[in-house]
Amino acid sequence: METFDVTYRIDAPASDVDARAEAVLLEQTVETPAAVAQAYPFVRDHMMGRIQEITPHPGGGFRVVLALPLPTAIADAAQFVNVLFGNASLHADVVLEDFTLPAAVARLLVGPRHGLAALRIATGVAERPLTCSALKPVGLTVDEVARLCRRLAEGGIDIIKDDHYLADHPFCPFDARVRACQAAVDEVAARTGHRTLYAPNLSGPPDAVRRQAETAQALGVRVVMAAPMLLGLPTFHALVRDALDVPILAHPAFAGALRIRPAALLGKLFRLYGADAVIFASFGGRFSLSPAACGDLADALRAPWDGMRAALPAPAGGMTVERVSELVAFYGNDVMLLVGGSLLLAGEAVSERTRAFTEAVAGAARS
Amino acid sequence: METFDVTYRIDAPASDVDARAEAVLLEQTVETPAAVAQAYPFVRDHMMGRIQEITPHPGGGFRVVLALPLPTAIADAAQFVNVLFGNASLHADVVLEDFTLPAAVARLLVGPRHGLAALRIATGVAERPLTCSALKPVGLTVDEVARLCRRLAEGGIDIIKDDHYLADHPFCPFDARVRACQAAVDEVAARTGHRTLYAPNLSGPPDAVRRQAETAQALGVRVVMAAPMLLGLPTFHALVRDALDVPILAHPAFAGALRIRPAALLGKLFRLYGADAVIFASFGGRFSLSPAACGDLADALRAPWDGMRAALPAPAGGMTVERVSELVAFYGNDVMLLVGGSLLLAGEAVSERTRAFTEAVAGAARS
Repeated sequence: METFDVTYRIDAPASDVDARAEAVLLEQTVETPAAVAQAYPFVRDHMMGRIQEITPHPGGGFRVVLALPLPTAIADAAQFVNVLFGNASLHADVVLEDFTLPAAVARLLVGPRHGLAALRIATGVAERPLTCSALKPVGLTVDEVARLCRRLAEGGIDIIKDDHYLADHPFCPFDARVRACQAAVDEVAARTGHRTLYAPNLSGPPDAVRRQAETAQALGVRVVMAAPMLLGLPTFHALVRDALDVPILAHPAFAGALRIRPAALLGKLFRLYGADAVIFASFGGRFSLSPAACGDLADALRAPWDGMRAALPAPAGGMTVERVSELVAFYGNDVMLLVGGSLLLAGEAVSERTRAFTEAVAGAARS
Repeated sequence: METFDVTYRIDAPASDVDARAEAVLLEQTVETPAAVAQAYPFVRDHMMGRIQEITPHPGGGFRVVLALPLPTAIADAAQFVNVLFGNASLHADVVLEDFTLPAAVARLLVGPRHGLAALRIATGVAERPLTCSALKPVGLTVDEVARLCRRLAEGGIDIIKDDHYLADHPFCPFDARVRACQAAVDEVAARTGHRTLYAPNLSGPPDAVRRQAETAQALGVRVVMAAPMLLGLPTFHALVRDALDVPILAHPAFAGALRIRPAALLGKLFRLYGADAVIFASFGGRFSLSPAACGDLADALRAPWDGMRAALPAPAGGMTVERVSELVAFYGNDVMLLVGGSLLLAGEAVSERTRAFTEAVAGAARS
């Protein structure tokens, strides 16, 4: 039986945990009473998985490692998530903590097509942390968005991304916005020599997202953004595989709702499904992730993993210029700091404020 | 300002709830400090939303109703979810409870194309509850699956669905399985006069799912199944809109992980995105939903809703023949009872056990 290991945290008392682990094992495999499954030799030998380990979890409850059948997990990009956490997600006492990566899944999903190193090459940033900001609030016209894009680029930022609420709006159409923002960063590059990359947000059903990807690349865009949990992981993966020649930043919208350890979802799964960089809500901002959870997440994106390309962690969500040195000290140089609203508060002085941000990052880079 | 109401439960003390509500409002709208957004007249007037109401929640914390901007919500099928719960999902103290349906969203998403009434017509069941079972465990060959399908059909079941782990497997390929199972239900219908519908599971990236939908319909299939949260809601919706002429059953895999009230996600959102029937883990089985939560969910699927078609609730997850009368008394006649593993335990007597199930349902139907 070919299997791979999946780790859950089960919030059950010691007296119940064996039965709960058996129940989760059945749920993630044959989903019938064991007697039904055992009547079929192939099912009994290849599809039932087994309990590998049950140990106390430091956070309470138990850490349960199951060996789950590989043949079902590698059927397609939706089934891998299904085998990891399809029905188990319906059990309120179960959290998905981690999984090992079988070679067959790595071949199916591949991971980042570009990754951290390619983002360094595309931005021309050899060693220091990268910088990123956002075009917001939603509601700006194309001219207003493009003007903001130009001002941020003049401040020396590396990547400027659309707000995740920027879609194909009548008040700010996708094609016109992408054309204007790409022209803005091109103009600044020609004038100042600093190349900023503009990352439009791709949103909608699969056909629309694919069309947006084609349009953006035809207009010279060198990086894009999308939210895997809004689109669906298999749709995000098909986009990366079939429609993109440029790196993609993954936005975490709708991802915090899941009862999955952030390092497993935003770290390992997003990387596995092809994200080249992953934006996440860092500690110390307006969200509630702990420093330890953020460190685990960043490590999951960058750690060696069976030859898969590393992805770039992009901590965000209420970051400020004042926190740059703390963040670089914590995350290291292989990071992209995303500061949005706090730069925009400078109003007409946004270029100068952005310059202060990019200079702070250059100064804080670890040698 | 055109807005629609979204209700959250925020787990905060009374002293903090105003500030938390303001923070969630900014998160779901302009995602910048308010001062940044207010500098743009269009944004200030149309994009900032407002707090409608803050009242104690009977379950603890507060019920916070926000009026959120419609222009961003109707941009596309991904943005509606984004505006409902994109970044708010990242806040551990926030649960999505409910939303109102603006006419513009109803026009964008339409809801079920067929619905409860069409499933009654397709199965020929005028008034009693419908019956459903599942082809499992995964690991059966095409011949074994088809044989099980025939035995269940001989028991008089209305709909037989694939297990949600049944995808396009080398050991049970999609096309061969669909052909064999459809032939099995056709043969039983010709022989006995009882028409069972077979519902294959569609799984994978958008192109694969679409191809499977086309193949299944070409082979005479009259109903299909897919898991909206595995595929992504916009992908599920595009499938319904562009590739299906037959009803679709929505499977809840990966949906329980979300911090969304089940009636809002499996009830309202699944219906809105086009599910004709929704399978859910009923109380009293191996999952943890309460009777009240199940009742709310079933009501959300069937209640009048601005002219949208009603969807059929399909309680599942450890149901048994012995519980039929209790379940019909609770859910009423407009329900489809899904009994899977418990029928399969009968082994070679599965047709007889299925007959007991279908007769129990006929007997329990409310007059």
